Amino acid sequence: MASPGSGFWSFGAEEGNRESDNQGTAKAWCQVAQKFTGGISSKLCAMLYGEGEKSKESTNKEEICTGNQGFESSFDKKSCSCDKGELNFSLLYSTDLLPAKNGEAETMRFLQQVIDILLQYVVNTFDRSNKVIDFHYPNELLQAYNWELSDQPQTLEGILLNCKTTLNYAVKTGHPRYFNQLSTGLDMVGLAADWLTSTANTNMFTYEIAPVFVLLEYVTLKKMREMIGWPGGSGDGIFSPGGAISNLYAMLIARFKMFPEVKEKGMAAIPRLVAFTSEHSHFSVKKGAAALGIGTDSVILIKCDERGKMIPSELERRIIEAKQKGFVPFFVSSTAGTTVYGAFDPLVAISDICRKYKIWMHVDAAWGGGLLMSRKHRWKLNGADRANSVTWNPHKMMGVPLQCSALLVREEGLMQSCNQMHASYLFQQDKHYDLSYDTGDKALQCGRHVDIFKLWLMWRAKGTTGFEVQIDKCLDLAEYLYNKIKNREGFEMVIDGKPQHTNVCFWYVPPSLRHMEDNEERMERLVKVAPVIKARMMEYGTTMVSYQPHGDKVNFFRMVISNPAATHQDIDFLIEEIERLGQDL
Amino acid sequence: MASPGSGFWSFGAEEGNRESDNQGTAKAWCQVAQKFTGGISSKLCAMLYGEGEKSKESTNKEEICTGNQGFESSFDKKSCSCDKGELNFSLLYSTDLLPAKNGEAETMRFLQQVIDILLQYVVNTFDRSNKVIDFHYPNELLQAYNWELSDQPQTLEGILLNCKTTLNYAVKTGHPRYFNQLSTGLDMVGLAADWLTSTANTNMFTYEIAPVFVLLEYVTLKKMREMIGWPGGSGDGIFSPGGAISNLYAMLIARFKMFPEVKEKGMAAIPRLVAFTSEHSHFSVKKGAAALGIGTDSVILIKCDERGKMIPSELERRIIEAKQKGFVPFFVSSTAGTTVYGAFDPLVAISDICRKYKIWMHVDAAWGGGLLMSRKHRWKLNGADRANSVTWNPHKMMGVPLQCSALLVREEGLMQSCNQMHASYLFQQDKHYDLSYDTGDKALQCGRHVDIFKLWLMWRAKGTTGFEVQIDKCLDLAEYLYNKIKNREGFEMVIDGKPQHTNVCFWYVPPSLRHMEDNEERMERLVKVAPVIKARMMEYGTTMVSYQPHGDKVNFFRMVISNPAATHQDIDFLIEEIERLGQDL
Repeated sequence: MASPGSGFWSFGAEEGNRESDNQGTAKAWCQVAQKFTGGISSKLCAMLYGEGEKSKESTNKEEICTGNQGFESSFDKKSCSCDKGELNFSLLYSTDLLPAKNGEAETMRFLQQVIDILLQYVVNTFDRSNKVIDFHYPNELLQAYNWELSDQPQTLEGILLNCKTTLNYAVKTGHPRYFNQLSTGLDMVGLAADWLTSTANTNMFTYEIAPVFVLLEYVTLKKMREMIGWPGGSGDGIFSPGGAISNLYAMLIARFKMFPEVKEKGMAAIPRLVAFTSEHSHFSVKKGAAALGIGTDSVILIKCDERGKMIPSELERRIIEAKQKGFVPFFVSSTAGTTVYGAFDPLVAISDICRKYKIWMHVDAAWGGGLLMSRKHRWKLNGADRANSVTWNPHKMMGVPLQCSALLVREEGLMQSCNQMHASYLFQQDKHYDLSYDTGDKALQCGRHVDIFKLWLMWRAKGTTGFEVQIDKCLDLAEYLYNKIKNREGFEMVIDGKPQHTNVCFWYVPPSLRHMEDNEERMERLVKVAPVIKARMMEYGTTMVSYQPHGDKVNFFRMVISNPAATHQDIDFLIEEIERLGQDL
Repeated sequence: MASPGSGFWSFGAEEGNRESDNQGTAKAWCQVAQKFTGGISSKLCAMLYGEGEKSKESTNKEEICTGNQGFESSFDKKSCSCDKGELNFSLLYSTDLLPAKNGEAETMRFLQQVIDILLQYVVNTFDRSNKVIDFHYPNELLQAYNWELSDQPQTLEGILLNCKTTLNYAVKTGHPRYFNQLSTGLDMVGLAADWLTSTANTNMFTYEIAPVFVLLEYVTLKKMREMIGWPGGSGDGIFSPGGAISNLYAMLIARFKMFPEVKEKGMAAIPRLVAFTSEHSHFSVKKGAAALGIGTDSVILIKCDERGKMIPSELERRIIEAKQKGFVPFFVSSTAGTTVYGAFDPLVAISDICRKYKIWMHVDAAWGGGLLMSRKHRWKLNGADRANSVTWNPHKMMGVPLQCSALLVREEGLMQSCNQMHASYLFQQDKHYDLSYDTGDKALQCGRHVDIFKLWLMWRAKGTTGFEVQIDKCLDLAEYLYNKIKNREGFEMVIDGKPQHTNVCFWYVPPSLRHMEDNEERMERLVKVAPVIKARMMEYGTTMVSYQPHGDKVNFFRMVISNPAATHQDIDFLIEEIERLGQDL
């Protein structure tokens, strides 16, 4: 592929962008910074006044880290006379940290240093003068540093540098101009909650070792079921490691519901099953079918209308056809918010068909589920209350840190019957508390990561209305983008009409192609435009947005907005940046 | 079940243990604490000198949080004159944090407050005078606080209190006397790395959005394969959400290797498969077979010797038997470190049989894999180098924070062929970088949590030799425990001989049962002993250790040691605590 910008940057160059503020801004900023606790204050001041140049220069080599000392000499003493404890991390190892005897001071200082690095990254993330990514090709990055694992330990100084280096080349997924995936943004309360989760370091399988988290999962799943519209929030559910696994769970449970003997006897003992989903649905439905031994050929892809919504009459036709062939339709996975177009399948009509033919109705609302929080937009999920199961990923539209995906199931107890194996070393039946809180045997997993706390804490911090405001704003921005480009020269919409979700799909047509006939040559050139612009975006590091072909449509941009940090100006920037990077193509 | 200690504690009582240090210790501690950065210094001093009483009293109600002010009035001014920025969190909401305009100061102060809470929890974790758990029954805990999610936002003061409350009732899984699961301990570098992972908040599916993490996964998996003994570390692998999913992956790939058409055509198109594993293996092998449509009846459990090791001749006999019935043996899951006994199957003998009958050999070394780091103990996994796939959970014996589980596969490319669906919106073939680093299509999942950084950073910090020291120490402690109790009155070993792993299984026999005949009455009483002692442990909060029945053996304790914080004194404590809590039974 073209690498249009190659040569305009070199490794470690252009790092200084973040220090481009003028001295006046720096001064004002530093006054704020001095109020912070922790080493961040001195670091920020130092960086703003130019001491940061040092770290800029040193991204290429593993510099000597001196803790705060270097900065303190010029700044910190002005504002604070307290002794910050000058530990020399170049003489310390992880064995000097807790649980080492008398390791408390070293531990606190080390962790605080790490936090200072992280807080600086957080501030940088939201600063538009910073790059979204400082991109380097895999081989360059592999060779630029020594990433190898060896027999001997590194000093804590080395470990702190490893942290800095890792973040230097991380993609700032919370940057206001990062639009590359359905999951974007960096929520401060969510981040705090994830830090707490790491510190608590436990496992969801039993109440015994995760009492609060198990209760919070119970409370939150109930609330989510209420929002779906299931009476009294009754039903079941689980947080799983992502939407694909949630969809797999749904298919697994649906199969068990229809043929419980499959658990012991396998697919050999039951009729040939078929599942249905739209041609615009997520690939995880097929992945799940392959894994479950159903096979991808038994996933029938239903035609969509031009907006990407499943056509109910097509669904019914294919169900009848499958039955005539002797297959047993057992699962319809409808989509609320498709990955590329952001389309919502007509759930009410689909649910009528599912009831008529007694088929499990699943709604993959991994992407669209967040709209249930919005009084203005929740109608798009009308009919989800009639589903048997719903996938809903708070790590997408609700901005919860990765990973946070829920599967909600209407019928209680089914997950347990389907997955339980009664491991006696975990789920002892003679424990002294209410065993219904030991939820581990519902899961395919044994150990299960704590994904609940960040969602719960964010919900407490925002309230449902806070999520609503945040989500409505993202949808407004998508409409703003649509209105700006629908008639703009050089932009062509992939689908007509204003967006239903925050997906806006469009081609950018460079000047050289605008007056060409719509023939093969034009197509061959158009297909290359989005990849080149994307590569340039990444190399400049100014913004990131996804592109892909879809069906018979060649590479187009798929803009999505889930980051509450994005503003109208960021949308304007994106449009102009695409024009700037693509005008010569 | 009996709830023997009920009444001896009440909600919120006995909280004061952590403040039990005498004033002399407090003073010395405070001098250390004053060197810390961040609010932790003043908090620690305040807590040590008794201001902590305030928070003790308030665990029952949602107190007014005043940031540092309350503490600063008495202590902080002595040591530091810097302005710590007295924000009133009772007037602030999450909308005042970044990305809010001018939200930097509020964000830094809020996150630093959270960190202060977390650092305090870390210090408390390693302090033996603190409880492992402040246990309350589910209904008590549900009713003691308002955990509900409402329409309206909470203030940041409320959010900080939520964090404190959550940690008050968390199980201190890093406490030196927490022995309840295979995953214990709290590694400081691992914790730092997990905080960084949360802050970077990205997804493993493409190099595009996780460049460094993808490279680190590549480097680390290669190193792990080298340690298994595969030539040049070649092969494949992935970090998955836990050992159960890693085992499921292995079975999925093994099936695909033998019958690639299963991906499209499903189980209906291939012969009846059977898998083999020992009767002591982890329940996830059966769970996987149920999910994959193979069925639990097709998992044949092979007899073990008295130490819990699979008997190879039994394996061969059952393979021949299955073939005679017309089934196709496709998968043997051997175990290196069983969950309860810590047994290592004879891998070399098993591999001979697998080669003879052309069956995929999997090694579930979720628990035992860590021993590969030890020159003294790695012989127990001899033969793993002959396996086709290995599950290895660094979050168990290596003490990496949860979750961190790897599946290693000997044949490169198989995972990709098995699972890929070519999603064009993620895995564009015309990207500008080397696409082999887009590893997402290998996975069953779409989004995949970043589990690599904590392992990589810990490995850098310890070196292989550091892991070795840590693991050898845990095994030494297990042997110490075994030697102490094997002839001790009131203790009966479940299996003879010194432990192979850190599992030590034993009954505690209270005085009243010691001279009873070995009849049904004794059995009926013995079965209740472990649950009662465990309930009492949890209610006193002094220690936690697991118990279970197994086969024909009634409830016994399974002690495991994976926490580097544990010492000989903690083992002594455990023995005496069991005697103390069980003597009246």
